[in-house]
Parts: sequence; structure tokens; C-alpha cells
Amino acid sequence: MQKSKTLSTSVSPKGSLEVLSHHEVQLLKASSEHSLYPIFRQCALAILNTGSDSDNAKDILEAYPNFDIEIVQEDRGVRLQLHNAPADAFVDGEMIDSTREMLFSALRDILFNQTASLPQRSGLSDSENITHNVFEFLRNARALRPGANPDLVVCWGGHSINKVEYKYTKEVGHELGLRELNICTGCGPGAMKGPMKGATIAHAKQRIRNGRYLGISEPGIIAAEAPNPIVNELVIMPDIEKRLEAFVRMGHGIIIFPGGAGTAEELLYLLGILLHPDNKELPFPLILTGPKSAEPYFKQLHEFVNITLGYEAQQLYKIIVNDPAQVAREMRQGIEDVRRFRVERSDAFHFNWLLEISPDFQQPFEPSHENVRSLNLSKDQPIHLLAANLRRAFSAIVAGNVKEAGIKAIQEHGPYEIMGDAEIMEPLDELLQAFVSQGRMKLPGSHYEPCYRIIR
Amino acid sequence: MQKSKTLSTSVSPKGSLEVLSHHEVQLLKASSEHSLYPIFRQCALAILNTGSDSDNAKDILEAYPNFDIEIVQEDRGVRLQLHNAPADAFVDGEMIDSTREMLFSALRDILFNQTASLPQRSGLSDSENITHNVFEFLRNARALRPGANPDLVVCWGGHSINKVEYKYTKEVGHELGLRELNICTGCGPGAMKGPMKGATIAHAKQRIRNGRYLGISEPGIIAAEAPNPIVNELVIMPDIEKRLEAFVRMGHGIIIFPGGAGTAEELLYLLGILLHPDNKELPFPLILTGPKSAEPYFKQLHEFVNITLGYEAQQLYKIIVNDPAQVAREMRQGIEDVRRFRVERSDAFHFNWLLEISPDFQQPFEPSHENVRSLNLSKDQPIHLLAANLRRAFSAIVAGNVKEAGIKAIQEHGPYEIMGDAEIMEPLDELLQAFVSQGRMKLPGSHYEPCYRIIR
Amino acid sequence: MQKSKTLSTSVSPKGSLEVLSHHEVQLLKASSEHSLYPIFRQCALAILNTGSDSDNAKDILEAYPNFDIEIVQEDRGVRLQLHNAPADAFVDGEMIDSTREMLFSALRDILFNQTASLPQRSGLSDSENITHNVFEFLRNARALRPGANPDLVVCWGGHSINKVEYKYTKEVGHELGLRELNICTGCGPGAMKGPMKGATIAHAKQRIRNGRYLGISEPGIIAAEAPNPIVNELVIMPDIEKRLEAFVRMGHGIIIFPGGAGTAEELLYLLGILLHPDNKELPFPLILTGPKSAEPYFKQLHEFVNITLGYEAQQLYKIIVNDPAQVAREMRQGIEDVRRFRVERSDAFHFNWLLEISPDFQQPFEPSHENVRSLNLSKDQPIHLLAANLRRAFSAIVAGNVKEAGIKAIQEHGPYEIMGDAEIMEPLDELLQAFVSQGRMKLPGSHYEPCYRIIR
Amino acid sequence: MQKSKTLSTSVSPKGSLEVLSHHEVQLLKASSEHSLYPIFRQCALAILNTGSDSDNAKDILEAYPNFDIEIVQEDRGVRLQLHNAPADAFVDGEMIDSTREMLFSALRDILFNQTASLPQRSGLSDSENITHNVFEFLRNARALRPGANPDLVVCWGGHSINKVEYKYTKEVGHELGLRELNICTGCGPGAMKGPMKGATIAHAKQRIRNGRYLGISEPGIIAAEAPNPIVNELVIMPDIEKRLEAFVRMGHGIIIFPGGAGTAEELLYLLGILLHPDNKELPFPLILTGPKSAEPYFKQLHEFVNITLGYEAQQLYKIIVNDPAQVAREMRQGIEDVRRFRVERSDAFHFNWLLEISPDFQQPFEPSHENVRSLNLSKDQPIHLLAANLRRAFSAIVAGNVKEAGIKAIQEHGPYEIMGDAEIMEPLDELLQAFVSQGRMKLPGSHYEPCYRIIR
Repeated sequence: MQKSKTLSTSVSPKGSLEVLSHHEVQLLKASSEHSLYPIFRQCALAILNTGSDSDNAKDILEAYPNFDIEIVQEDRGVRLQLHNAPADAFVDGEMIDSTREMLFSALRDILFNQTASLPQRSGLSDSENITHNVFEFLRNARALRPGANPDLVVCWGGHSINKVEYKYTKEVGHELGLRELNICTGCGPGAMKGPMKGATIAHAKQRIRNGRYLGISEPGIIAAEAPNPIVNELVIMPDIEKRLEAFVRMGHGIIIFPGGAGTAEELLYLLGILLHPDNKELPFPLILTGPKSAEPYFKQLHEFVNITLGYEAQQLYKIIVNDPAQVAREMRQGIEDVRRFRVERSDAFHFNWLLEISPDFQQPFEPSHENVRSLNLSKDQPIHLLAANLRRAFSAIVAGNVKEAGIKAIQEHGPYEIMGDAEIMEPLDELLQAFVSQGRMKLPGSHYEPCYRIIR
Repeated sequence: MQKSKTLSTSVSPKGSLEVLSHHEVQLLKASSEHSLYPIFRQCALAILNTGSDSDNAKDILEAYPNFDIEIVQEDRGVRLQLHNAPADAFVDGEMIDSTREMLFSALRDILFNQTASLPQRSGLSDSENITHNVFEFLRNARALRPGANPDLVVCWGGHSINKVEYKYTKEVGHELGLRELNICTGCGPGAMKGPMKGATIAHAKQRIRNGRYLGISEPGIIAAEAPNPIVNELVIMPDIEKRLEAFVRMGHGIIIFPGGAGTAEELLYLLGILLHPDNKELPFPLILTGPKSAEPYFKQLHEFVNITLGYEAQQLYKIIVNDPAQVAREMRQGIEDVRRFRVERSDAFHFNWLLEISPDFQQPFEPSHENVRSLNLSKDQPIHLLAANLRRAFSAIVAGNVKEAGIKAIQEHGPYEIMGDAEIMEPLDELLQAFVSQGRMKLPGSHYEPCYRIIR
Repeated sequence: MQKSKTLSTSVSPKGSLEVLSHHEVQLLKASSEHSLYPIFRQCALAILNTGSDSDNAKDILEAYPNFDIEIVQEDRGVRLQLHNAPADAFVDGEMIDSTREMLFSALRDILFNQTASLPQRSGLSDSENITHNVFEFLRNARALRPGANPDLVVCWGGHSINKVEYKYTKEVGHELGLRELNICTGCGPGAMKGPMKGATIAHAKQRIRNGRYLGISEPGIIAAEAPNPIVNELVIMPDIEKRLEAFVRMGHGIIIFPGGAGTAEELLYLLGILLHPDNKELPFPLILTGPKSAEPYFKQLHEFVNITLGYEAQQLYKIIVNDPAQVAREMRQGIEDVRRFRVERSDAFHFNWLLEISPDFQQPFEPSHENVRSLNLSKDQPIHLLAANLRRAFSAIVAGNVKEAGIKAIQEHGPYEIMGDAEIMEPLDELLQAFVSQGRMKLPGSHYEPCYRIIR
Repeated sequence: MQKSKTLSTSVSPKGSLEVLSHHEVQLLKASSEHSLYPIFRQCALAILNTGSDSDNAKDILEAYPNFDIEIVQEDRGVRLQLHNAPADAFVDGEMIDSTREMLFSALRDILFNQTASLPQRSGLSDSENITHNVFEFLRNARALRPGANPDLVVCWGGHSINKVEYKYTKEVGHELGLRELNICTGCGPGAMKGPMKGATIAHAKQRIRNGRYLGISEPGIIAAEAPNPIVNELVIMPDIEKRLEAFVRMGHGIIIFPGGAGTAEELLYLLGILLHPDNKELPFPLILTGPKSAEPYFKQLHEFVNITLGYEAQQLYKIIVNDPAQVAREMRQGIEDVRRFRVERSDAFHFNWLLEISPDFQQPFEPSHENVRSLNLSKDQPIHLLAANLRRAFSAIVAGNVKEAGIKAIQEHGPYEIMGDAEIMEPLDELLQAFVSQGRMKLPGSHYEPCYRIIR
């Protein structure tokens, strides 16, 4: 029984056409062994679901049980045959171009993952191999533009933010766009959409026709955070850790808006990396910003960083309240420093090779109940390892909140149990409760049932 | 004594560079005889004043008494040297590109007017000559694109509308943009900006990089209705009548949002033309639309048309309340009819040659007190002539409200006196009072002192 | 009775579409009064005759008595309907694109001439007015590119040259093209085609996709010197003097290959101008070059200049024999000097405003028998006036050789009589006889009957 | 001791920039283990040697013993540092763009080979795997253009042909270009250059700015057949068999000009494939053509095909003597048939998936003396296997003539011994002797010492 309005049609790629081999077409068929069909179907459905008002991946995927997508070889390349696709992706029966483009981006990345993941390159350490893999993914997606000046601002922040905060993200995007900067986000709604929308208008004013609105996702999160239609480059990285590495290797600076568990995960990830001694001299502009109403939020986060990672970590970012133009000016200046640094060190503008990322931040973390329970959340370890473990804890909460597998696991086994030193557990608990009470865990309108328990 | 923040700098053209002769550079110098400097300075100041919250041309022009603009010949073309320019046109000291482009558009049109206005072409009637002149202006501005399919929707409506109405114009623009239609307006704020903004976002979604946001202005109105920065093609026609003719010859369909005197002028202009017997078979999609709250407004206007021009005139348009997608769908269908008609008749897609415009709608109307007083506003004349005269009455009110010359005239001689048959004066009076009470005459926040008296 | 193979078809413009008004379409109709049809038909026929092996304009025009060209307005612009057109302009029934483009260039220029020629601009001298007119023509033809660096090399030389000389012009063009220089010629065969062909190959090697092969012609000569199909910008100036002015105002340097009367005319024109005291400091690279076999030719020309204009004139050019790479290197260096000079003086790269051209070189010279006979060819006058008169003498010979009107005049009244001081007449006679004996007067294969008599 | 003129400089990529990872940069360093440096140096030297008048790979490589090429990572990407490079690749000290482009193409392909060659794809046969690898190579080189209509004509023929034949290949290229067809060759001089040069001029006439001049080479042959500078896409396939497969899968039709052993190899390869029963219905236009003087050459080849492969094989091609326009017309028609066929069968325009190539034509043939001696050149085998073996025999002769390894082997072990049935050996001997006496084995001017002995 299906209630959602659907549509069946066929679409061909537009613009950057993808060329597939017979073998690749075969791999995407539902019938083939080792088929990539299930993951492609899931990503496609997520993309077609743009504008949905749910962030529950499981619900979305179940709303269109009869959805089917089939790839067909034709004289001028491949086409996609869609059956029972969400009707909202269409205008008067024609698929919106951005959606069409993203379907083919998904195709590209899923196929590439299959190819790229196989060989371990001789002479490379595990960590180097992962980095090389991230690089290859981005290159294959044509996301690396060697000729261009540094101009890519990564914007992180919640998918579920209030109207005042959303408007603020648009204004920041507008000011960034006026200064000819491009935007990269996690490609969902909320703080991931606002900056792109603002930049689109600003780029129009500055007559920039090739503005970049780069969305970086991964198969587990894409259903919950469907790419907003402004995204004009979509890359689906193989897992959450490679997605994070893509952000920090491509972005020339990062802005963090208010958000929930995912945003905290991102902040801890970045702080953990920047605390690494080898990254000491590396300029990396990082700004936390929001409207006046978000000031308490940032104060609490600032305090949490202080307690867990120390005042040194606080030096790695700057909090700016309610001043979009100032945010943009500081970011532009910060990126100019990055530019100079890369020129001096002969590092690529398009990929931050010099950033040292330790394996703790690269290895995929599987958020099983067991794994979560055994996280070492104490001060008995180097500070960047604590950051890595805290990052994992937040990552689990994200999974439990919105990812299909996580939601299922919580339904079966109850909430995750997060344990550790009291001096960390206490502020963590407060932070999480604040997220809950401010409605940052789930999209507005839905009641939030925590997927975790803090064991002090 | 000057209070406004200003900035001095020099800018070169970008993109479509203008090539000027020594003679033309000379003509634009303040010092030269028959100089075009005053009008260029005035238009430039208006353009630089984007985003100002005044619609009083006189005030704007007087706010920057020390503003100066100078043209300089250089190796790669001309540059503009600006002194004491409004600071809002700049981001961190650099002029916004759209503004820069518009300055050079103004230059182009002002120079062309000087060249084009001279010769009366042999073998052409006065009316044909005016139409030819309108054509030449648009061609010189590269606004005529012979290869393109009909897709240009003219949006008319007030510069002073409320938030609900403004949001509605954005939504209509968004729906038009999703259907790959382009936007043309009078290039000021309010209903002239909203559709462009909506279409910009929609075009981004549809990956249309060359969306057109065409603003058509004239020297008298541009100061009061500074081009919004989304406008990516600006044409400054020599007078209000040629501006109106440009709208109806270029536009493939017209949407009218709520507005004041100017909007009424535009509606009457168009109805007057379409009522001409020669235009009977000509398809010309015309839609009046607004949010639910604007329904009474359209009802009153609809009634006014009925009383003055009759039910026949009512058949020329369609009122759609609160349904942006339906507006866009009907417009697309209407434009398809236009396309078919032009193919059949071998008329150009880019210029509506077949539309008959009688000289009454082409001859410039000078809104002197004398001329206004002697307008024939009675039913003792063909219906399209009544439309022409009513159009002139509204045109005068616009001048008295926002144009520099008009405001001065009212200050000196008091309000215009509008006289005519009681059966016309009565509904006219009511309509105007509604405009006043709904705040459609001037931008919000300012008290409105009527510039007219209805003499019944 | 017609023997030439013909074809009838209709073509639409491609690329830069021309937008015409109803009035303009009317002007081009055969039926209309003051019609531009005859001149358009003549130019069109010349263009379609590309590759013909005749340089007799009269013969060409008479070979296709039934040729007809008609302009038709359609939805997407205008089309041209051709009847009985020369079949060589087509490949398997489809018109070659370069030809198609040139037809529309001719249309553009002929219409513009009609518009532009009318008004005398107030405040300009006759000479300034002519220069302004030349400028407007080139601007309207989009031949002025304000953003570009100086890179346009004008190549002059005979339409009738031998194989060795032709090969040499290709090699020079190749070396110029390798140095990223563009080519401008008179657009016919021989020395006007070779450099373009060589540059085309070199531009392909340098991956220059927008190389310019600019041909500048005029209605009287175009039939005899049909534009070669490499020409990718064609401008038809109104008369021979404006064509010459276009060459020297647009070209950043000039190369002269061996040629006949036309080439001598060009050399004298340029020397006459550069001898003007006001042009003393102006850098203007001028190189005379040819293969080894052409050395005697240049020696004779060099001597002729010495005798008539003096050693000072000899300092204005450099003769380089048989060294294409050296020619290109010197030209590139010379153009670099031009660039620096224009930057210093703030003169436009795209139009040499600072070059002083006296009216003697601008006023059209009508080569009637009477006018030729009364040319003052004595040393009793300023040197640059002698140059001007010698230029006119050669101009007349060109007309008598290949232009329709000139050929007719010679048929009726016999050869022109050229009179003057013996010290000038003698070397002139020798020079002309050398041209005749070297086959430079007419295309090979035809017997040449002199159209002049030297009266000593 | 080095005599050749050289130059040292550094170049950055232009146009399609290549993005390399740190690991890849490392792989190209001379110092690294498993380095790709030797093969990259060799290809680079070959490319820089454009226009050399030698076809002896060994000589070329030895002429620049001090040549060195180094890759450097910089902010905007990689640069190449060249030391003691052949001076002919430069114009006034600047590298010709086509050469610069090709260096980066070589880089790309050599790196890709390393990546691509590793994994055997599960579920694919050996033959399918090779085809997939050919596909991946071409895709990675962006040589597959899915949107385009079939228009790629492969031209095969000798690198050493006389002037009359060379001129003829230019004329055929010109006629192909006029019909908007693109050219693909083996990228050396002679019949590989002429068609590209002719097409360049024709494309200029047809205003085609993106004409394709695709050169497909392999590391062994590139030094002997340096890419001519018209080539604007260079792909270096890993071996001769993949190069041949690339030709027949990408080309929509093939023209064979006179040539020597390499050309015979190509003809036999193609006939062998087309004789496969599965390819019976597949349209594949194949034209043998040359000037009048080449008629005997084609007659002899035709006869050889008759004797060895039978009259059936003769039906697969058409011989056209001395009619370039007819060749182009037939080719265009043939390609139209290909287009229709692919549409019907839903096969890609850009890659001929339906062509069946048996493993005998895919497996690399190592031309050792032993392998050559044991070739089965008898009629005791299916006809397409005989074709495969004859192909190998000619391949060995090519190696012995111009490839570095082959030349060395001959120097050490004397000529190859080719044995087989008398009825085959006899015409083979005659054919080869004709190649020798017509100077088709080596570039003119050099004495040819056969690298083979026919043992009857």
C-alpha cells in the first residue's frame, strides 16, 4: 500500500555526460550478482526525495516501496528508466535538472567506489592509502580544479534549525558570495542549504555564472539529508570518515553554524586534527557564527571544548555573533593566508596535502552498541585521541537519530550507552540535553526520543 | 553638507565591453557643449543607489551633491572615474559587478539615443519610425536574441508592496523559472524584484546559467526605481512611451501583480492596445495575480475596467488568485500559443512586429498641469482612446509621486486636476483612494500627500 | 545563355545572428525604391564566387545573369533565398559555412552604410567625421575588440603571385601564427590568402581556437578579389579610402609581400601618412618581405621610393629577404613597441586614434580619365602630397585592371594617361613594366593589356 | 658528446589540467622504485621530437642523452621541468602548445596504465577484460564523447610516402573536413599527418572550432612516429594490439592510404576481424584510396588479399583511385549506415561494443625471432586465423624496421625468418619487395636493409 504521489519516466544525462562500459551497466542491474543496484536505488530515492519534510532515512525509503530505477544503454550513452518515483522531483512531469544531474553523480560515485576500493597501493601506508582514495574520488567527480584560486568555504551546521538561524545562514552565504567565495556543505536542508541560497543570489549580483555549490554526502546519510536542489556538484563519498576528510582537504576555510550532534561531530573531528602537532603552523580559518539568539548555544559549546580539550583548542576558532559581513571578511582574509601558505610550501590549492590526519580519524567507526559502550571517554589519553573518541560518540548519535541502520539498531537494542569520566560525561549530558530542548536533534514537528543514555 | 557615506574609485567594464569613439567620450564630458553628462550622471547615480529606501528621485539626486563621474580613454577601452559615489554599491571597496555592468549599459543607451534620435527615416510614417527606433534601441543593447524560443515574461506591479505580496511575486518567479521562462520588469524594487529573485533560484535548480533578468527603465523613473542588482540586462529607453512599447514588443506574455498608479498605467496601456481591432486575433497572454489578501484589489480593478472599458476589455486578461504554479502553467501555455502564431505568420520571436500600436500610445505625454487638466476622460470617444487618456492620467500621477520633474511641478503649482465624466471620475477616485490607503503610492514608512485632485 | 553550374537554396545565419527590422528587410528587396538590392546582389555574388579563377569583376558578375538573392523574415530571424547561385560555394548541396557567414556580413555592412552615412556629426571636422565613420563601421562589424592585446598583422601583397611567392606568404603566416599573432588582409587570393592559411595551421598547433583572419574589402574590389574561405571576419567598407584607413587604424603592424599596382598603392598610402610630421614619434612596424627570387622586385621598389619620396621614406620600413621566422620575430617586437606606446599615451589598442591622416588620403578618388590626367605628379609639392597623388595613380590602374566600372571606362575611352615630371615618370614606367612582365597585373594565364599610358 | 640543439625550461599544463596525487608524482620520479620515469622520459622525448626526419626510435632516443624531465608539484597543480630538450619543440624559447598538451597526455596515460592494468575484473572473460581496459583508457583520456554523432574517420597509411601521395592525403582530409568529419590516425608523419592538415583547413572554412585530430599511439612506436603537431588529442595505449582495438572500436569508418608493413598489418587486422561470422551484419565502411600513381600498389594489395584470404575478404573494402570528394561522400554515406545500425541495436556511438574481436587479435604478440619463425602461415586453418598470423608477421617487420627493441634484436640475431606455404610466401615476398622498392619501409633518403628473410 503506497500513498505518496509518484511518476514514471526516463531521463538522459545533461551536461557532463557519463560514459559507462557494458560491464558497468551490468553491475548496476538488479539482476546481476554482486550488484550495486540496492545502494544505487537507495541513493537515487534520496535524491528524488528533495524537499521532503522527513529526516528519517528508514521512513523515506519505505514510503516508495515500488520505486525502481533501471539503467539502459543507448546510442548516445545511458538513460535511466524510473518507475514510481516521488512526484515532487518533477515540474509538470519533467524532472528538475539539478535532480537529474545528481542521479548521474550518484551513479558515477557508486561505480567508482567499486573500482577504486580494490587495490591497496604498494608503498603506501594505510593512512596514505585512504587519503589517496579520498583524492581519487574527488578527482573522478571532477571536484578538484587545479587552476582555481582558493575560494571554497565549507559550511557546517544543523539540518534542523529555526527560521531565525536559517535566515542568518542565508545572509552569511550572501556575504560570502558577494566576496566571490564558493560554498561546500553536507548538502541537506537547514544550515546546509541556507548559505548556498544566499550565495546563489550574491553570485548573480556579481555575475558569477560558475559558482560552486558543492555537496558532499555518503550513502548512509543521504537519505536523511537529501541534497537540496541548489547543490550543483554532488559527491557521495564511501563512508562518513572519508566524507569528513573530503571536507577538510578541499575546504579552504570552515564556518560552523548552530547544529546538533552531527555538527558537534564535525567540530570535534576538525579540532582533533588541528590539535595534532604536525598541523601547528598550518593556517585553517574556522569561524563559529549564528544570530544573536544563538549566542548561548555557542557559549555552551565553547565551554564544552574548554572542559574536554582545553583552552588550546579554543584558540583554533573564532566565534562571531550576528555579523554576516564580518564573518565573510574574516573568512576571505583567512583564505588569503591559506593561499600564501600553500604557495610557499608548494602545496596544491585544490587539495590540502599538508594537513596531517591520523588514522584514528580515518578508520570507519561502526556504531554498534558494543563499540559505543567501549569508547574511551576519559582524560587518560592524548587530547587528540579524546577528540577522536568524542567524535565517535556523536557519530553514533547521528546514526541513531537519522540513519536507517542506526534507527533499526536502536529499535532492537534500545539506546546506546555512553560511558566515561564524570568530568566529561556531565558537560556532555548538558550539551546533549540542550540540543534536545532546542530541537536540534530532529526536524521540527517531530517528538524526539533520545537514542542514547549517558552513564556517569 | 552631505551625510551619505561615499567612496571614490575607478572601474572598467567587464564582459561585454563597450567600444567608444573619441567623439563619444567627448560628448560625455561635463565640459563639452551639448553634453550628455547631466543625464549620464543622473542615471549613474540612480544605478549606484541600488537598495536605497527612497523612491523620491529628487531626494536621491540631492543626497549626493558632490557625486561626479568621468569617462577616461585607456589602452584597453574606457574606464569610469567615480567621485563620492554611494558606498552601498560596493563590497569591501569593490563595486558589485551588476552595478558596474549597469553603469556601462547606461552609457551605451545614452550615447545611442543621441545617435539614433536624429534621422527621420524616409518612407516611414511617424508611428513606424517610433517603432523602428524602439527596435534599434533594443538591438543596440543586444536585447534581441533571434535564435531563442519565446520565453520572456514581463512582470508588472508596484514598487511598494507588502511582505505577503512580495513573497508571492518571488514564488511566481520561482515557478516561471522552473519552467525555464525568463523575466523582464521595470527593474526597481517590490514586484519588479521579487520575480527575478525567485527565478534566479529556480534557474539555478534547472542549471540555466544564462537566465535573463531584463530591466527596462527610462531616465525619468530610474532614480526612483533604481535597478535591483539581479537585473542582468538593463536598457534605458528614451521616454516612458518607448519603454512601454519595448515591454509589449519584447514580452511574450505579461503578468500583473498588485501595484499603484504605475501598474494601472501599464494595464490601461496594454488593454488600450489590445482593444485595437487589428490586434483581435493576436494571442497575448495577460494574467493578473496576487496572494489571497490581494483578491479585493483585483476585484476593484476588474470592476474599474468594466465600468470604463467594458466587459470586452475584461476578456483580455485572466485573474488567478494565490496559485503561483497555475500562473506559470497558464503563462507557458499562452506563450506556446504565441510561438505557434508567430511561426504561422513568419513574425519574429524576438520582436512583436504584428502588434498594432496607434500613435496615441506612442507620442510622449508631457504631464504639465495644463495637459493633465485637458485630458478627455469621457465616454464620448472610441474605447481605445479613452484607455489612452486614462493611461495618461495615471502617468501624470506617477510623475507627481516619484519623478524629479513631476515632484517639482507639484511643489510649485499644487496637485494636478483630473476632470471628466462623473461615471468615470467616481470609480477612478475610489481606485486611487484604495491605492493610497493600501500604501501603494509610495514606499512604506512615508506619509503620502496626493499629487492630484479628482474634479467630478 | 548561361554556362556556369548553379544551385538554388535558402540559408539562415549561423553564429552571430543579425537582427533586422522590417524597414531594413524592405530596403534590401529588389522592388523597393532606393533599394540596396543591386549592391547586395553584387557583393553576394562575389562572395559566392570564392575560388573562381578570374579577377575580372565584370566577367564574374556577367557569368551569373540569373543569380538572385532574396531576404525573408522568419520567426527566428531572417533567411536568404538564393536562386542560380554558383555551385562551387556548396559541398554536396550545402553552403560552406564561411560563405554563409560572409553573406550575412555583407548584409550587415551594406545596411549599416545606409544608416551611418547620413548624418554629419556636429562639432567634427570633415576628416574627423570620416575617421569616426570608419570607427563606427568596424564597431558595428564587431571587429574592434577592446580587451585584446595588440596582435593584428596586416598583410598586403598581390592577388596574382607565383607559386614560390605564395608558398613564402604561407610560411610567414605560419611563423606569425606560431607567435600568436592574427592576420588581416584584403581578403582575396594570393598574398591575401597565403598568410591566413599558414596562420590557421600554426594556430591549430598553438591551440588557438579564436584566431582572427580578418578580410577588409569594399564593394568595387570584392568581385575581383573574392574573399578566400579562411577569412572568418569580413568587413566591406564603403570605399577604397575607408578600407585603407581601416587597415592602418586597426593593424598593429604591416607586412608587404610582392604585388602589383594595388600593393604599390598601399605602400604609398602608408608612407604618405607616416611621413606626416605629427606621426613622427608613432611606432608603426612595416616590413617588406619575399622569397629570394623577389629580391630584385623589392630593390626596384626601394629605389622608386628613394627617387620619389627620398631616403627619409626608406627609413619607415625594413626589407627582409627569405627569412619568415625573422619577419615574425621583428613584427612581434615591433608590436610590443606599439603596445608600450599606446599604454603610455592612453590610446586604444583596438583603434589607432593617434595616427594623423590628412584629408588627401581620406577623400574618395574617382578614377575618371580626367581626374587621372590632372594628377600632380611633380616634386613641386610637399612630399606627402606627392605620395597621395602617386597613390591615386596606382589606384586608377587597379580600377582599370579589375574593377567593373574601371574596365568599362577603359573599354570606352582607352587607357588612362598618366603625366608628370620626367624624373618621376621614368622610374614609374619602369616599375609598371616590371609589374607587367612579372605577371603581377592580372591572374596568371591571361594576357595583360595595359590600362594606362605613361606620358613623359 | 651531444650535437643536437637543446633547451631547458619548465612548462605547466594548459587547458584540461591534470590533477595528480602525491603518490602519482612520486611514481614519476626517476628515483622511485618501480618508477614510471623511463617510459615517461622516452615518450616525452618522442613528443618533443616532432618534425624530426628520422623514424629510427633508437637513434632518436640516443640523440639526446642528457635529456631529463622532472615533475614538480605546485600550488595550482603540477609543472614539468625539462633539461636539454630538443630545441625544435619551441618557438622563440616557448614550447608550442600542442607539444605541451601532448606531454601531459603522455603523463596521464602512463599513470593510468599503472592503475588500470592491475585488477582482473571478476565475471569477465580475458577478451572482455581487454576490451574493458581499452574502453577505460579511452574514457580516462576523455576521448569518448557520448553526445556526439558518429563522425570519426580513421586514416591509416604509410609514414613514408612520396609528395604526390602526401598531397593526396591532404586533399582527402580536406574533403572529409568539409563534410564535418573528424580525423583519427596513428599520429606520425606522412599519411598520418596529411588528412589532419587538410581537415584543419576545411574545418576552418566550415567554422568548426572543435574539430578532432585524434592520434593513437603506443610507447614502442611513438618515438619512430612522433605525433605531428596538428594532433589535438593524443592517447598512448599500452601496446600495439590495444592501439589497434582502439582504432576499430572508436572509428566509424576507415580509410587506407598507401603504406608499408604497418599499413598491411592494419589492413590484415581489420579484415581478420570483419571476417569473423559474428560481424557479418555489422556495417564498417572501409576505403582504400590513393592518387593515380598508387593504382598499381592497390592492385597488388588487392591481389594479395585474394590469394591469402579469398574473394570474400575483398568484399569488405572498396578501392577508389584519385577521387577525394568521392572518397568523402562514400565515407559519409557509410557512416550514416553505421549510425542507423547503432540506433537500431542501441549500441553506443562512441564505442563499437558490438564488434566481435577474437583473442587472437587482442593478445600482445612479442616479435622474438623464435615467435616469428613459428608463425603458422598456411591455409590449414580458418581464414581469420591466417589473417591474425599474417598480421603478426607484418607487425614483426614494423618492429624490426623502426622500434627500438626490434632494431636491437635484428642487430644481434640477424633478420627474422618468415616461413610458410609457398602459395602464401610467394606473393608475400613480392609484396614486401614492392614496399622496399617503392621506399615504403623507411623514410626517404635512408638505405633500407631488410629485417626479414622469406623462407619459401
